[in-house]
Amino acid sequence: MPQDLSYLLAFLGIKHPVVLAPMAGVSGGALAAAVFRAGGLGLIGGGYCDIEWIKAQWAEATGARVGIGFITWALAERPATLDWALDQSPAAVFLSFGDPKPFASRVRRAGCPLIIQIQSVDDAKRALDVGADILVAQGSEAGGHGAARATLPLVPAVVDVAGTVPVLAAGGIADGRGLAAAFMLGASGAVCGTAFFATEESMAHPAAKTAACRSHGGETRRGRVFDHARGLNWPQGWTLRARGNPFEQAWTGRESELTELHRSAYAEAFANGDTDMMAVIVGEAVDLVKSVRPASAIVSDIVTDAARLLDHASNIARHFEGVSCDGS
Amino acid sequence: MPQDLSYLLAFLGIKHPVVLAPMAGVSGGALAAAVFRAGGLGLIGGGYCDIEWIKAQWAEATGARVGIGFITWALAERPATLDWALDQSPAAVFLSFGDPKPFASRVRRAGCPLIIQIQSVDDAKRALDVGADILVAQGSEAGGHGAARATLPLVPAVVDVAGTVPVLAAGGIADGRGLAAAFMLGASGAVCGTAFFATEESMAHPAAKTAACRSHGGETRRGRVFDHARGLNWPQGWTLRARGNPFEQAWTGRESELTELHRSAYAEAFANGDTDMMAVIVGEAVDLVKSVRPASAIVSDIVTDAARLLDHASNIARHFEGVSCDGS
Repeated sequence: MPQDLSYLLAFLGIKHPVVLAPMAGVSGGALAAAVFRAGGLGLIGGGYCDIEWIKAQWAEATGARVGIGFITWALAERPATLDWALDQSPAAVFLSFGDPKPFASRVRRAGCPLIIQIQSVDDAKRALDVGADILVAQGSEAGGHGAARATLPLVPAVVDVAGTVPVLAAGGIADGRGLAAAFMLGASGAVCGTAFFATEESMAHPAAKTAACRSHGGETRRGRVFDHARGLNWPQGWTLRARGNPFEQAWTGRESELTELHRSAYAEAFANGDTDMMAVIVGEAVDLVKSVRPASAIVSDIVTDAARLLDHASNIARHFEGVSCDGS
Repeated sequence: MPQDLSYLLAFLGIKHPVVLAPMAGVSGGALAAAVFRAGGLGLIGGGYCDIEWIKAQWAEATGARVGIGFITWALAERPATLDWALDQSPAAVFLSFGDPKPFASRVRRAGCPLIIQIQSVDDAKRALDVGADILVAQGSEAGGHGAARATLPLVPAVVDVAGTVPVLAAGGIADGRGLAAAFMLGASGAVCGTAFFATEESMAHPAAKTAACRSHGGETRRGRVFDHARGLNWPQGWTLRARGNPFEQAWTGRESELTELHRSAYAEAFANGDTDMMAVIVGEAVDLVKSVRPASAIVSDIVTDAARLLDHASNIARHFEGVSCDGS
């Protein structure tokens, strides 16, 4: 593990094993750059491959070495976006939610680190087959799109098939306790989204940031209402975790009845920051998000707290009576 | 945390911070006694409060200091079961799935450690209000009954409200990596069910143990089919996680159509070990269960591996460049 970690940090050219989740519409250039400057890996949320938005956010990050994430099925619809991104020499390309095979060799040929996020052990094997440099094992507690497996049991199961490929844990990690736990599970770091949602540099609406700071993990749930309301045609197998609200409660189970009129109303609510209707896309770790802060403070707290916990972990083992603590 | 841990171990009179989940019909006297002899806390699965079964299993554990777990809503229907149990001076009483208030003061007056398992932060607060000595934060990845929150983000959120009350992590933990991660999250130990399901001492059907050893976490899911098939009238709010099978797939979504004939057929399949129909009640951590072994080997592996990981954790922190590692 320590060998994996130093390899990972050198490979990505970062100081701290904390990666900004490429949240579509939230992880813009300013946030990605702030995470880079704090020592982590900043990823712009390339999401649905709107090339003009991506170009503008890339410009915002000028001077910082950032990477970019794509929703893989959206990239399949606009594959030229990847060419443009690779021409910028990104710190990494991060693919999730779809078949990475059509894109993997182009990323690798460009000499760019290829990070593939998966939600199951079978998909981890497929990602290894196409040459992922780094795997992200994402649990269901993550905000945004995801699937059914939970982070804590998924990470060791993925580590057990990953061989020498480093695994990052995603989903449910928003403080140093979560990062330290990820290491114990065999991961080499963490991907954090919710932790950065309510940062000063995040592109989330100010009302959404305020709502996140007041929300509890138990108020979040997985569903399809918000994707239908946004007119996003997500394939089967993935759902969106977000804070529940009256709009989501009213339409769960009858998403297909949402009309163009509803979609217009939703877009207006989103622009206005109406959190009774709009999605506040955070995960279960939102319990740990209390106030709007600079991204650098989040990175610093996560790594400092994790380092302190890891440094003192041997004190815990001393309390197991009769267990040899001189293992290799 | 180390202070909490030594307090917890002394309070429960155990050597290792590993607790056998009181799995109904699986955690009998032999398994609970084996976990006790291996240094953990063995809990008989009192489940639905069948007093004759409980008495027989208690006799099986003669010579070992074991505790007992109850499904709280079932205990409300047969409250005298608690009186009998308290008369045996159990090592602990473990309550889950229902309102513990009517029973908490009796357990405490008897001088018996009261462990309350919860699935949300709000229920954690209620458990603290009624005087829980120990909280168990159970995530959705657990086998058997549970709710929606995942272990990794639930544990720190519960720790943050628990004050000086120790918190154990449950759900998704079946090896030393999981136990070490639980400590990093702020827990003082782990409750393990799936890890002990396929032990030699487990009362699970041999065919169910074999199926568990061959199953993957992604094959498990939460639902209500098996409870309907067993004629168990579980309240809203809890579902059962088990390995999926053809019977479960066929009836999901139309559980209320299951008739007495189906229930008879299910009972026969259960008796015969027909795993195409019967529930194999394991959680997502079943990826880590490979063979039928003695419970003592499971306890030993979990604590030895956890101790080794914790002992060497400080090596990981050294790789975070620029982070002070001299924190208190």
